[in-house]
Amino acid sequence: MPCHVARYQHIKNGDIGWAVVDTQASGDLCFYAIKGNYDDTQSFLRHGKDLAFSMASQLRNYEHKLISIAAINVLSPISKPCRILCQGSNYPQSRIETGMDPNDKSFNTIFHKSDTSITGPTSDIIRPSHVQLLDYEIELGIVIGEDISTAVELSKDNLHRFIAGIVMVHDVTARDIQIPQGQYFKGKSYRTFCPTGPFLCLLGPDEMHYLESLSLQLTVNGELRQSDTSGNMIYSPHETLSELSKFSDLKPGDLLLTGSPGGCALTVPSGILIKLLGLLPDTIKWKAFINKQSKNDKYLQPNDLIESTIVSADRKINLGTQRNLVISE
Amino acid sequence: MPCHVARYQHIKNGDIGWAVVDTQASGDLCFYAIKGNYDDTQSFLRHGKDLAFSMASQLRNYEHKLISIAAINVLSPISKPCRILCQGSNYPQSRIETGMDPNDKSFNTIFHKSDTSITGPTSDIIRPSHVQLLDYEIELGIVIGEDISTAVELSKDNLHRFIAGIVMVHDVTARDIQIPQGQYFKGKSYRTFCPTGPFLCLLGPDEMHYLESLSLQLTVNGELRQSDTSGNMIYSPHETLSELSKFSDLKPGDLLLTGSPGGCALTVPSGILIKLLGLLPDTIKWKAFINKQSKNDKYLQPNDLIESTIVSADRKINLGTQRNLVISE
Repeated sequence: MPCHVARYQHIKNGDIGWAVVDTQASGDLCFYAIKGNYDDTQSFLRHGKDLAFSMASQLRNYEHKLISIAAINVLSPISKPCRILCQGSNYPQSRIETGMDPNDKSFNTIFHKSDTSITGPTSDIIRPSHVQLLDYEIELGIVIGEDISTAVELSKDNLHRFIAGIVMVHDVTARDIQIPQGQYFKGKSYRTFCPTGPFLCLLGPDEMHYLESLSLQLTVNGELRQSDTSGNMIYSPHETLSELSKFSDLKPGDLLLTGSPGGCALTVPSGILIKLLGLLPDTIKWKAFINKQSKNDKYLQPNDLIESTIVSADRKINLGTQRNLVISE
Repeated sequence: MPCHVARYQHIKNGDIGWAVVDTQASGDLCFYAIKGNYDDTQSFLRHGKDLAFSMASQLRNYEHKLISIAAINVLSPISKPCRILCQGSNYPQSRIETGMDPNDKSFNTIFHKSDTSITGPTSDIIRPSHVQLLDYEIELGIVIGEDISTAVELSKDNLHRFIAGIVMVHDVTARDIQIPQGQYFKGKSYRTFCPTGPFLCLLGPDEMHYLESLSLQLTVNGELRQSDTSGNMIYSPHETLSELSKFSDLKPGDLLLTGSPGGCALTVPSGILIKLLGLLPDTIKWKAFINKQSKNDKYLQPNDLIESTIVSADRKINLGTQRNLVISE
């Protein structure tokens, strides 16, 4: 059975711990402390994962220590330092909205996001003072479970050897940095641009099929903006990890963000119009781009509340709810 | 005085050590072992740097253990894991050759290269079987010396607090991946794509001026291809590190690659021609690009030998010589 865990900090003494999370029939959450000290996510995955699975299979055993939710803050289950490798344009609807061909599999867009951007699942997102076009991108995060230090060929059959589980990640993006400057790294890496969690769902060998049946939803101030299923990904996790292994070592606790569905604030006119715009000198082109985009009221503003969920069709996986307020720098 | 150090591995027992490197009047190199065990570059910079400076000031003191060069392999002085942050288009001549405005300071192109690519200063460069357009880019590497975990304002006056020294880095690039796929990360990150070293030159507080007077040269099979001075950089290290600190934590041993001078194999037609090419469908455009570029015999082929040097105008800094053979996968 999928096993949900959380990383938390005691408000009183600052101690960090890990817990198995159980959702009651009432919807209430129970946190059961996992014995042992784990310095970081890598250490937890190496030494605490088996205990977590074993606890999850017999959770109402009263020997497990129940934690008072009021006494803790839930942290990102992915600790720093870690690698965050990301896919761009990996959902058909996202491609259509940005003027791209949804059927073109000529290459998998892969970039890197700084781990400096990681923040908690309910932390504020700080909009830097020089950023106007702040956009949302809910994504399914694949959590690496094994050391990879050479090129490997992954398939659906051996995927479980390399993946520990999944987590919800919000790839917050400054479009006015990302698009005019070409390289995505900077526009996606500012501090607080990566709310992660609340739950890391550990998957057993027979549970990898869940990667294709997860429903992702994101709302802004209660309005549904993004809604899609992970089964629509263009490049699947085994294809992407096979390619990634050729140019990036990976270790337990590293993250692969699998791209965002459509519905973001950014839309780009398709085909010939965008190509004609390309004829303008860069400074004029990008001024026109920012000017046009800034009239779109879907871009995030201070005091906007973003809420996101990822659940499986059979409801056995629920990665929790992210709730993040946008604030000014 | 600038202090040159090397990280090496004993051929016999595999032990790793650090040495102060002294260049004799004859041009011969002497390696003097630095006492202490340092797990990685971070540990050496935190705990061994002062000892290295002190040894360098009195090197012919016979108490220092002279190492037989025949008994060791010189490694990259930058160990993994580390962050490799890179600047693109940071020399005027490089911009001219790729159809860009050398006077445009509207943004600093910053991207990330995988530390998986790091290899030794005389190691082979492996050209992946799917890569045709393998290009060279000699770069000055800035080695971070201090933890940075919040936005900081650097100037020429406080630069010494954050920089430990400098190193030669070769940012090997697969142009047929980098350019058509847009994001630079993949095309620059394959294993062996980052020969580093041989020497890390530690700089004292009064020696930061050297960052502006270093001569970079790269030859292929003895033919000079790249030659420029670090003083021509468009964005200087203090400007770049100030911006970087807004979206990337840094620690001792992390690297900033400051961009490559002109002279690479890649040249791009300027102005309107390249813009008109942009009107073509992507698949046709990139096929034409690769076809045209592959007729350029400056791209690296198996058995090509690349040699690179970086020295200061007063010859007090000499980062050694890289010698790398290109081989097929």
